Order: sequence, then C-alpha cells, then structure tokens
Amino acid sequence: MIDARRLRGDLEELSSIGRLPTGGISRPAFGPAETQARHWFIGRLEQAGLEVKVDEAGNISGRLPGPGPAVLSGSHLDTIENGGAFDGALGVLAALECLRVIRERCLSCPAPVEVIAFSDEEESFLGFLGSLAVTGRLPARELGEITNPAGVPLSRAMEQCGLDLGIIGRAARDPSTIRAFVELHIEQGPILAERGASIGVVEAIKGNYRYGITVRGRRDHAGVPMRGRRDPLFGAIELIETMRKQCAEIAPEVLMTVGQFTVEPGLENVIPGSVYFSVDFRDENPRTLRSMEEGLLEEIERLGSGLSLEIRQRPLLKIDPVPMSPAIQTAIEQAAEQLDIDWVALQSGAGHDAQVLGRFVPTGMIFVPSRGGRSHCPEEYTEWRDIERATEVLLAVILSLAAAD
Amino acid sequence: MIDARRLRGDLEELSSIGRLPTGGISRPAFGPAETQARHWFIGRLEQAGLEVKVDEAGNISGRLPGPGPAVLSGSHLDTIENGGAFDGALGVLAALECLRVIRERCLSCPAPVEVIAFSDEEESFLGFLGSLAVTGRLPARELGEITNPAGVPLSRAMEQCGLDLGIIGRAARDPSTIRAFVELHIEQGPILAERGASIGVVEAIKGNYRYGITVRGRRDHAGVPMRGRRDPLFGAIELIETMRKQCAEIAPEVLMTVGQFTVEPGLENVIPGSVYFSVDFRDENPRTLRSMEEGLLEEIERLGSGLSLEIRQRPLLKIDPVPMSPAIQTAIEQAAEQLDIDWVALQSGAGHDAQVLGRFVPTGMIFVPSRGGRSHCPEEYTEWRDIERATEVLLAVILSLAAAD
Repeated sequence: MIDARRLRGDLEELSSIGRLPTGGISRPAFGPAETQARHWFIGRLEQAGLEVKVDEAGNISGRLPGPGPAVLSGSHLDTIENGGAFDGALGVLAALECLRVIRERCLSCPAPVEVIAFSDEEESFLGFLGSLAVTGRLPARELGEITNPAGVPLSRAMEQCGLDLGIIGRAARDPSTIRAFVELHIEQGPILAERGASIGVVEAIKGNYRYGITVRGRRDHAGVPMRGRRDPLFGAIELIETMRKQCAEIAPEVLMTVGQFTVEPGLENVIPGSVYFSVDFRDENPRTLRSMEEGLLEEIERLGSGLSLEIRQRPLLKIDPVPMSPAIQTAIEQAAEQLDIDWVALQSGAGHDAQVLGRFVPTGMIFVPSRGGRSHCPEEYTEWRDIERATEVLLAVILSLAAAD
Repeated sequence: MIDARRLRGDLEELSSIGRLPTGGISRPAFGPAETQARHWFIGRLEQAGLEVKVDEAGNISGRLPGPGPAVLSGSHLDTIENGGAFDGALGVLAALECLRVIRERCLSCPAPVEVIAFSDEEESFLGFLGSLAVTGRLPARELGEITNPAGVPLSRAMEQCGLDLGIIGRAARDPSTIRAFVELHIEQGPILAERGASIGVVEAIKGNYRYGITVRGRRDHAGVPMRGRRDPLFGAIELIETMRKQCAEIAPEVLMTVGQFTVEPGLENVIPGSVYFSVDFRDENPRTLRSMEEGLLEEIERLGSGLSLEIRQRPLLKIDPVPMSPAIQTAIEQAAEQLDIDWVALQSGAGHDAQVLGRFVPTGMIFVPSRGGRSHCPEEYTEWRDIERATEVLLAVILSLAAAD
C-alpha cells in the first residue's frame, strides 16, 4: 500500500545533505547540514498536507489531526560524524510515508497521528535532547554548560536554528495526550541479517551503564626495573581483562566495549603517568548491570591497592533496560503475520528515542536488518525490499493503535 | 681535589636555561634554549683555557692538548620536554670540572684530554645524532627527512645554529685518535639509591628492541553482540598480556614498556576500528631480546588469525646490548676503592652516547644515584655529596686512562 519509490526518493534526497567524500554522512545536531535537513523535512511535511509544528526543543512534527490522544511515530534526523544514511532518517521518513498514505487513501484513522523527528539523538550535545524534552525529563541545571565536541554551546547552536534554550521546558507534553509511540529503526546488529528475517520486534532496549576510569601511576623512564614500577597502563589492562572474564562467567550475553583509551604522556620510552579509558556495559537485565558495576568497583579497589595505583571511576551513563509495550509488540507481530513477513523477537543493544518515550507512554520498536550488522559508518545499508515490508508493518501498526480502545 | 662548589654553580647556571614554571627543563636539540646553553658552555670552555672546537654535527669540545690518542669524557646538553636538570648536563659539567682541575693543578696527564657535549641525544631529531656522527655511523640517506615533533627539519634547525647538515659526515673521527671515552650520568633507576651506593660501575648498556604495532578490526556500534565482533582493542590487550606472561616466564629481568596507545575513533559507544601501540623491550642479553621478538611475531600471527584481526608490526629500534670496556670498569672500581667510595656494578636500562661510542672505542660509564629512581621529569635529583664523589672518581679514571700504555 505504501509508495516505496517515493520513500526511497525521500531518503536519497535527505542523504545528499551532509554527505562526505567518504560516502558517509555528517549531520550533527543543530549544525549547518542538520539545519538544512530540518528545512527540507518541514517542506516535505507541508507538501504532504500535514499540520507542521516545531516545538521549543526543535522537535519537528507533522500531524493528521483527530480527537483524543495521538499515535506518534518517528525517530531523528541528526547523525554522528561520518555516519550512515539510514540510522534515524529511515524511521522519520517511513512514518511520514505512512501518514501520506493514510491521508491520500482516506484510511479510517479514529485518532490523531503524528510523525516526529526528535532533536540531538546522537549525543552531539546531550543525546536524546528532544525526546527527554517531550517527556519532561531534561536535566535542566546542566543544559547551560553543554557544548558539542567543537566547543559550541547548546544555547548558541539552538539560537542559530531560531530556538531559545531558556524555554526548552515548554516542549514537555502531557502523557495523556499520547496514545502510543512506535519507532522504526535499523537494527545496528547482525541478528536479523543472520536469520534472514525482514523485521525485528523489539522486546526491550538493553540497559547501558558506562564509566570513565582514570588510573594514575608513576611516570618513569622505560629503563627502570620492572619491580617497583607503578605502571598505570598494565593496571588498566589487568582491570579490563578481569572485567572481560567476569562478563564471560556471570553473564556471557552482556556487551562490554572499551571505546576510549588514552595514555599520558604517550611517549615510546616513557612508562605512562596516567591512563584514561571508558567502559560500556549493556544488558537486558538490570540485575546483571548492577552486578557488573559491583564487580568493577571491587576490582578497582583490589587492583588499586595491590598495584599501588590510584584508580578512580566516574559514572558516565546509567540507563536501566526499558521493556517495550507488550500490546505494541503483539500489534507488530500480528501485522507481520497478516502481511506474511518473517519476523524475529530481539533486544536492542543500541539506545533510541524509544527508550526515553518507553518510560512515558506505551512504546514499541520495529527493526529492519543492518547489512553485515554495520551502523554508524558509511557502509550502513538496509535492503529496500526489507524497508518496504517494514513500512507496511508500521502503517498497519499505526492504524491498529489508532483504532484500539 | 675537585671544586664541588664551582661544579654546582655551573649546573645551577645551566639549569636556568630552558627552565619551565613546573621546575622542569626544556632544552630540545638545536632549539632556542639549547642554543643559549651551547653559547654558555662555549664561554665556560674558553674561561677554562681549553681549546674549543665545534664539529660539523654541532658537538662541542674543549681540549687539553697533548700527544697521541685522547681520553674523552662528556655527555649531552639537550633535554626532553619538561625533563630534569641532571640528565646529560651533569656528565658534561663533571668532565669540564675534571679538565679544569688537571689544568689548574698541572696534574701529570701524558695524553690529550677532551670534554665533549654531544648533539641531539634525546631524540628531538634522530637521537644520538652527535655520537653517531663522531663514530661515522649516521644513516646518511634519511637525514634530509628528519624533523622534530614540531615539524622543523633537522637541516633548518642546524642552520639556525650555524651548522650545515650537508657536511655533517665530516664530524667522523678516526678511532685510533681516541684512547677511551668515559661518561658520567645519572642512573635513571632506583638501584644505587636502594643500595645506598654513591656510584655505579656500568657493566653493559642493555639492548633495546622496540616495535610499533597496529591492530585493525572492525569499527562497530557498542550495541552489537560480543560474538562476531572484531575488536582490535581487546586483541591488543590480549597481545600485551601474553607478552607480559612470556617476559615473566622466559626472562623475568627483561624490561617491557607500552608507552604509546591510541585508539580510532576513540568514542565511548563505538568499538574501535584500529589500535596502535608501541612496545619496548630492554635486556642485557641479545638472545633474550631475540626470543622476545620471535615470541611477539608468533603471537601476532596466532592472535591475528584467531581473532580475525589484521596485526602489523614495524621495528622502531633494534639496538643490541653494548658491553662496557672491562679495563675501564676496573679503572673505575679501583678509583672508587682508593677514594673509599661505595660502588655497585649494574647495567644501564636507558640508552646513552656511551652505547654508540662503545662500539667504536673502549668506553666506560659511571652512574650516580637518581633519587627515587626518577628521571626525565622535574623531580630528577642527585645528592651533591654523591656528585662530588663520582666526579673525584671520574678525575682519577681520566688520569689513569691518560697514563695507561
């Protein structure tokens, strides 16, 4: 029922905004490319005959009006630096396509339906800024100090988009005005591709605990004897190895990533004085995450005194797992069955706006496969056959949620 | 016999050149501060009534003339960034003090004696530039491409000191004109301080093999499952841990240092695409170094295929151990015994100009204690009592070498 060619045209047009010579896309939130994408998207909403609104957080909505609480669907338009064309953008444009079809075909839709593009999902500034604003959960006090990696304050970046950080709180909505939120998104993992399924029904978004760990030892010449050294790099490595073993023993499914690792002074012939690294744990079970945290703190204590190192940890992120609405999961499964589309139930390892909305209103997610499990890179790709099927499912789910009592 | 107060005055004056607010000293080779130090040192040589010569590599000599091959003693005036006041400078100024005493007291010295300050020991450009030039072992072809970390070409830096890189080869000497070289230097390790000895008699300078290792995997989102990841950071850590175990088993005395460690892209929520690190091995036994190298290459092979990572190694340094002259070791020990000074025989973990000269002419080293084993940092310090004793030993050794048949 949906017009796959039109959807593909939209995605290709949007992909040309912020495109790099690498083939990757850079549209960090509130930057020039993302601002251009915002203007382009508002134009598309107007063309589709939707009621357009930009709220105080810069979230862009297009609405088919109606009585009572609305069904929302969407994702985000911003990307990481040198990211892909599908992450976020696909969920926004698929929802737009569904609304166009509902309007053009005069499909029976007893509730208002709204496509929404949330601001700053990808952590250029805060991450999930738009969805946190909608749910009234912004950390108000810190906002004035937030900058992007280039050092631009959030307030100035928003100002350049015609927004006023001082009144961002007004973007908060009353949850009783929202019937449900459904987000279509690429999987960012290999499960669907491996199983040959066209869509994934997300059961939960994994929790995500993240720490920044500083290990201080004693900077020394590489010629000093091994005994008596206080080498923070070997200490950091031991800590990481111990945590990996703990993962394997306690919870083999837990995800552990060390993405940052820096060394001071970083000279070939000098034992480092200090090391900093980040460690990120993801799991569907909050108890597992808490036991990883306990293990980390104990290990820091043990290693620090054993190796005469000063080890400090700072929590960077503490997001508990968010289950998706069982009713919406069922709606997605039923739509897939009716359309004869292969589906798989799975968990999301990545964070999404749905994880913020999921604590606020009934929320669901539909995943499409990521080729090779890749995302956040120029190689990010989803087959158009799968996108078409998933968008048909999304349309059916939106209609069934709008019709539900 | 030496004038310790005069020596201390010299060192304090020299330390004021390139002094930072940290208390550390930055006199990288051929930079403004080191150039100022050169002028100051030439002035001191002239005041001492020595024959001054600056060779084509910028090595500065002050000579008491005489017939036949000369006894050389000295070290270097350059420092690392934010280094200490004693490393290099002390060996140059102690030798100057000895020559002053020989001249002033008309001590019997049947051979020419020369104090020498070698250029660029600390690797601002090549490292050991001056001593390599004297021994005719400069890697001539590469010299034109060498820059310091700030990107200044060696040729330009030398030009600013009135030197012409094009004729640096002329600094080479005939080994038959040099009877011996003796270098007094701080230990840069804790052994003398721990044993309460005033001087160390260096038996050998440890060999130093160094590699740059690149591990490439697959950049991925931190939400993808653990199995199927190709994480180069965990691969690098496994390689380092295995090498540490190999050190402990094969050669517990071998020194292993990972001084550089960088991660691409270095984002908290992204599995790195690649990791680079340096690994530095030091040992007195060339066979041990070669077996560490073999172990490293085997481990790279094994891990690379086992973990689906692409691991490449590039040798950065391959210096075999250099034994010091047994005759000079004996001369140092005898002088210490006669002066009733506690001495300890030990190896040098750090590299020195003596390691270059040691392959060319009979060479010896006298170490003085480093407080806390620290060096290459503002805290670098040696007690003046120990400096005085070591300089007395150096004087006795120079005289005995000059008198030897």
